[in-house]
Amino acid sequence: MERKVSMKDIAERVGVSIALVSYVLNEKEGRVGPEMAQQIRKVAQELNYRPNLIARSLQSGRTNTLGLIVADISNPFFSNIARIIEDEAKQYGYTVLFGSSDESVEKSQGLIDTFLNRQADALILAPAAGTEPQLMALKKKKIPFVLVDRYFPSVPANSVRIDNYQAAYKAVTHLLRTGKKRIGMLTYDGGMEHMQERERGYRQALEDHGLYQAALSQRASYLHLQEGVATGLSHLLQPDRKVDAVFFATNSLAIEGLKQLNALRLKVPDDVAVISFDESDAFDLFYAPVSYVRQSLRDMGREAVRLAIQGVEQKSRPQVDVIVGADLVIRKSCGFKAG
Amino acid sequence: MERKVSMKDIAERVGVSIALVSYVLNEKEGRVGPEMAQQIRKVAQELNYRPNLIARSLQSGRTNTLGLIVADISNPFFSNIARIIEDEAKQYGYTVLFGSSDESVEKSQGLIDTFLNRQADALILAPAAGTEPQLMALKKKKIPFVLVDRYFPSVPANSVRIDNYQAAYKAVTHLLRTGKKRIGMLTYDGGMEHMQERERGYRQALEDHGLYQAALSQRASYLHLQEGVATGLSHLLQPDRKVDAVFFATNSLAIEGLKQLNALRLKVPDDVAVISFDESDAFDLFYAPVSYVRQSLRDMGREAVRLAIQGVEQKSRPQVDVIVGADLVIRKSCGFKAG
Repeated sequence: MERKVSMKDIAERVGVSIALVSYVLNEKEGRVGPEMAQQIRKVAQELNYRPNLIARSLQSGRTNTLGLIVADISNPFFSNIARIIEDEAKQYGYTVLFGSSDESVEKSQGLIDTFLNRQADALILAPAAGTEPQLMALKKKKIPFVLVDRYFPSVPANSVRIDNYQAAYKAVTHLLRTGKKRIGMLTYDGGMEHMQERERGYRQALEDHGLYQAALSQRASYLHLQEGVATGLSHLLQPDRKVDAVFFATNSLAIEGLKQLNALRLKVPDDVAVISFDESDAFDLFYAPVSYVRQSLRDMGREAVRLAIQGVEQKSRPQVDVIVGADLVIRKSCGFKAG
Repeated sequence: MERKVSMKDIAERVGVSIALVSYVLNEKEGRVGPEMAQQIRKVAQELNYRPNLIARSLQSGRTNTLGLIVADISNPFFSNIARIIEDEAKQYGYTVLFGSSDESVEKSQGLIDTFLNRQADALILAPAAGTEPQLMALKKKKIPFVLVDRYFPSVPANSVRIDNYQAAYKAVTHLLRTGKKRIGMLTYDGGMEHMQERERGYRQALEDHGLYQAALSQRASYLHLQEGVATGLSHLLQPDRKVDAVFFATNSLAIEGLKQLNALRLKVPDDVAVISFDESDAFDLFYAPVSYVRQSLRDMGREAVRLAIQGVEQKSRPQVDVIVGADLVIRKSCGFKAG
């Protein structure tokens, strides 16, 4: 690379001291007359001066970088949040490093190490199951972090999420109102709190109508999605318990589930009604557009960045749980209200 | 934050000089006995020593960071490439900063400035139209960069992409073989070379069969996608030129187009056959699964990272254009072969 333009170069060109240039370019020009400040900035621009933020960060202790760890950046739920976090971080002058944990404890630790080695000022994480000790270690090291989408009751930490219990309760209650009586659920195993909350909401809605059957709640593994959905659906569709509706706990589960329902030539909603969490273009284009719980990704991303930067600036109180909005988007896949 | 563990702390604990610790932790332990090296590494781990890569980068001139600039990280084409670039970069010990240009010249310049201020070692860009001067400036500053998906004939630069002309030619030729005669195309305006190549392939395939009509080639604006697709489709569906097939130049155009065809109650493929570029879950779940040109995103991401890191290590020759594979995935949306 060619030699970088330094403050010295600017000082020589203008005919002033390096200290004076430094005052102006570090925006402390209170001590410098406005005309001189303007001249220095003009020359800096002409010479294409570029501040070395890395060097500066050694003094300030800041890099203006956030590390974002999601399960998989290619999953639309996370790529949409990433986009909002990017835009929001930019407002504060921050850029974003990203990484995908694939729900793996080891990969999550690797990403945390990498981002801390690069002196990320704060982390935003959709934490994988079993990463509680990693988060406790971050707390101990006083690294600011914010959890999005997921959280752990055992780890007191800033988090931004929806009320998963309420959202699931509302979705299943809607299916009950359309006259469905045997409603199955397909969720992830792994015991993540947000998945358990969705299951709890599903269960409570059915119990309130005396219709809960434990056998209708099936779990798939994140790493073996296709097989897990196949096994779960084949359970739910057995003649003795044949469901009239399926509640999918995520968009990935629903997309895989709809592909398999198509392969089985089952019609939505006549053979099986469907409702899901989260948006997808695929839901819009499905022949029976899919009803879903819409999480406010904009609020989620915005609040996550706000809390992360408050953490960096030490302004935050010990712990904040932000519950953002979620609503039910009802379309054809649920069938219509009975009566 | 708590005080960081330094090499001095390790040296004191082991009872050796700081220089010795530095040799070992910077992997120059040829000069140190293997037992001593092992002991030093063990203590470093016990004390939770974390090298300051930022400080180290001031000496090495490297941050092991790549900056990735795409049009929109929430577009599945780019989030899938981002995921592959992330995984590939990790193999080389690099992490990735990302940013979305929204096809804006100003946003692109802003992201380039930000990433260079953070001392990214190299950039990978899917450049927006009109950013040629920004790329020329990168060349002048000897910042290594690689173009993915798009490129500019006027800017000699490393690039990784498919043969867009051939891929479009093959897609349209397939539609012709199924007996379609009035094939429309919907693409983006803005004059990007890869879009022009797709248009050129479309045109040549039709000209080879004496079926080209300029009026059947329509363009939409990236920033006003919905209106652009509506206007384009209404042109293509006018009674006097009613098309029997539409070739969409990107997945975003196709998804919006299919939504509008649904709203118009037109059946695919009977009323209008459809073929697109790029994958989408929505294509799989559409009632007539959509045929598409599949670009090898894995090869694209892998080659982009390889070239970027070669650039950092100064091993690259002046210019490399890598053409990765693309194939045609034929499904129901094209209809079937006549005869």
